[in-house]
Amino acid sequence: MSVRFYNCRMLTMKDDKIIEGELWTDKDKISYIGPSVKADRSFDREIDCKGNLLMPGLKDAHTHSAMTFSRSLADEYCLDKWLHKAIFPREAKLTEEAVYWFSKLAYAEYISGGITSCFDMYFFKEASAKAAVETGFRHIFCGAANDFGGFDELEEYYLKLNDFDPLVSFIYGFHAEYTTCEDNLKRMSDLAHKYNAPVFTHISETSAEVEGCKERYGVTPAVLFDKLGIFDFGGGGFHCVWFTDEDREIFKKRGLWSVFNACSNLKLASGITPVYKFISNDMKIAIGTDGAGSNNSLSMFREMYLDTVLSNIETHNAAAVDPFTILKAGTTGGALCMGLNDSDCLSEGKKADIIMIDMNKPSMQPENNIARNIIYSADNSVVKMTMIDGKILYEDGTFTTIDLDEVIRESNRLMKGLV
Amino acid sequence: MSVRFYNCRMLTMKDDKIIEGELWTDKDKISYIGPSVKADRSFDREIDCKGNLLMPGLKDAHTHSAMTFSRSLADEYCLDKWLHKAIFPREAKLTEEAVYWFSKLAYAEYISGGITSCFDMYFFKEASAKAAVETGFRHIFCGAANDFGGFDELEEYYLKLNDFDPLVSFIYGFHAEYTTCEDNLKRMSDLAHKYNAPVFTHISETSAEVEGCKERYGVTPAVLFDKLGIFDFGGGGFHCVWFTDEDREIFKKRGLWSVFNACSNLKLASGITPVYKFISNDMKIAIGTDGAGSNNSLSMFREMYLDTVLSNIETHNAAAVDPFTILKAGTTGGALCMGLNDSDCLSEGKKADIIMIDMNKPSMQPENNIARNIIYSADNSVVKMTMIDGKILYEDGTFTTIDLDEVIRESNRLMKGLV
Repeated sequence: MSVRFYNCRMLTMKDDKIIEGELWTDKDKISYIGPSVKADRSFDREIDCKGNLLMPGLKDAHTHSAMTFSRSLADEYCLDKWLHKAIFPREAKLTEEAVYWFSKLAYAEYISGGITSCFDMYFFKEASAKAAVETGFRHIFCGAANDFGGFDELEEYYLKLNDFDPLVSFIYGFHAEYTTCEDNLKRMSDLAHKYNAPVFTHISETSAEVEGCKERYGVTPAVLFDKLGIFDFGGGGFHCVWFTDEDREIFKKRGLWSVFNACSNLKLASGITPVYKFISNDMKIAIGTDGAGSNNSLSMFREMYLDTVLSNIETHNAAAVDPFTILKAGTTGGALCMGLNDSDCLSEGKKADIIMIDMNKPSMQPENNIARNIIYSADNSVVKMTMIDGKILYEDGTFTTIDLDEVIRESNRLMKGLV
Repeated sequence: MSVRFYNCRMLTMKDDKIIEGELWTDKDKISYIGPSVKADRSFDREIDCKGNLLMPGLKDAHTHSAMTFSRSLADEYCLDKWLHKAIFPREAKLTEEAVYWFSKLAYAEYISGGITSCFDMYFFKEASAKAAVETGFRHIFCGAANDFGGFDELEEYYLKLNDFDPLVSFIYGFHAEYTTCEDNLKRMSDLAHKYNAPVFTHISETSAEVEGCKERYGVTPAVLFDKLGIFDFGGGGFHCVWFTDEDREIFKKRGLWSVFNACSNLKLASGITPVYKFISNDMKIAIGTDGAGSNNSLSMFREMYLDTVLSNIETHNAAAVDPFTILKAGTTGGALCMGLNDSDCLSEGKKADIIMIDMNKPSMQPENNIARNIIYSADNSVVKMTMIDGKILYEDGTFTTIDLDEVIRESNRLMKGLV
């Protein structure tokens, strides 16, 4: 498949400039980006962008895709109760079939919201992998082992899912300190060392979690993991709400990724991440939606907006966080965080993971500053097209690989087994 | 014009139940709502809703519509600097023509975001009124007088705009205490008394505003206005971020409306309104977007989401605010606040100000709780249709009364005169 996009504006995310011209894709890659030229070749498809904006797809750097089953369920609980009363009992009833369909529902939401890859922690990974490949969605698994299971299969998954399909890969991870005993943390460290591999985990999501870790080990989770050698080959953490300055120092020194999940932290009353501190420390940052049970949407636009504005309150500064830095975290940062070094920006030879922003939406006008319009005013309604790996998966409201009616029907049928 | 919507689900907002059946409109009103019946009559149009959801339109209870010109301009300033450095100098250059086109841009955003009326404070009211009537949008003006102007014309506008068109009305209001001297506040009170009329104003938006008022008068703005008799016939305030318990007591006692503007307050670093305190005091609440310069979107979905979750942090409670109470504030509350007693819910004889939520959006699935899906997961992308006063103004992405290309072209042309 080769596509020529012409009459486009482009935000490559290599810098904040908007350029005009065209972009070509061949198979899974961008083959040309630059001014309009007379193409001495043919394309499978030529798309007049009519001035709409091409940019790299958004990267959801922390999510639990199949948890779409839990959307608008048990919205009244904080994290601990929510997990133990609402989520764990239902997860015990989940089947491969359920994870397959609820993952597809999530992919539909990602794709129609301009998200071209996700960094996902969940079970029944084969079911999600199958759904991802059928959909054409780029799915990066993060190992989700804890004391209830997963450590015995972690290495097997690492080898299997990194050799499954070009759209799928697997990065080591465990659930969190409060669900993982020291022996298992050491197993995690051993695997990181065996494969020189990065490791990710939920970290410092609630103050209770940090206090519990300090009671058990006398140190914060970041300090503990660092001491155990878990981060010797990189990786990072999800949430990072209650990081101390020392935690940030460790993450900075080791080049670890801090992944923010503002909506989930608000909804579960976990806290507000001081995003501005991570940025002023020049740390590596990315953004995720977390699962649909604790958000409840899977919109990266809402996340990016909140990561930009929430720091304003604590700092009494309307410019505490630069919006372009957040747009970069939501695109380039997310890609690099999940090992997608070829999906980070629009450039020749990079993967064709591209979205088109509809500039003919009222919220995108006037064009005082297009990048800021995206951060401060966009939502899923501005996504006109989503291409992953060179294939158009969504265009003008229509999915090309997902039968949404079937996904919705199956999702509601399967909910009956989870009550 | 008569329309029969069939195969619908309906959230009337009289309670939180979802009912199935059909809804008919005749001219500007709802003529039937209930189970499917054999209609012994014809309609101008019959729409198969295919299970999609009809509900009352959202009401934007505080905005400055024509400030779409200031979207993504001067995002780096807090309220005081933002007004004096970025906004006032540009507003001095605004023309009738500019307000006409920038209002139309706002109406397009409202309508495509499911908003069927706005409570608007701005200048060149005739230009907005003309644009509203041409569009078919329900525009409620709020007098925006302050020491720089407006008091001399306030009564004239009151009489003129309440007799202009059924879609347009005018409610008394002034900008804020910090821009209005005591003599002018007394003039405001006199007008309220002359017409037994409610009065609205910006109130307690920043802590500096409250402190300034206390220095000048020894009391908070709410206490001052109450003493001056401004609220003797009702009304209310926009923002209400820094209300004291005494302020809430006054608003409760007098049945005044507190209108929340969460996004603007975050963006301008003004603060977070403790919405839960207003609800536990059983106060009258409504929700607005504020203008596009300080938000920067005009999405009521984002406002409603934030008004639901932001209180969680202060209270350490994931259920600090009931989502349905917020949905009610964003529909019924807004309508009653701006005097639209016939646009508050779906019921026979009420105005046909109706929106259709597209249940075939991934973010609206599964259907564990449809009302919560709207609060926690919806954005403008779920709005399938918007009807105001019995006329369909937006359907499947297309506007029926707005030439959006022209609005965008004119908006960007007019920006050049505002640099």
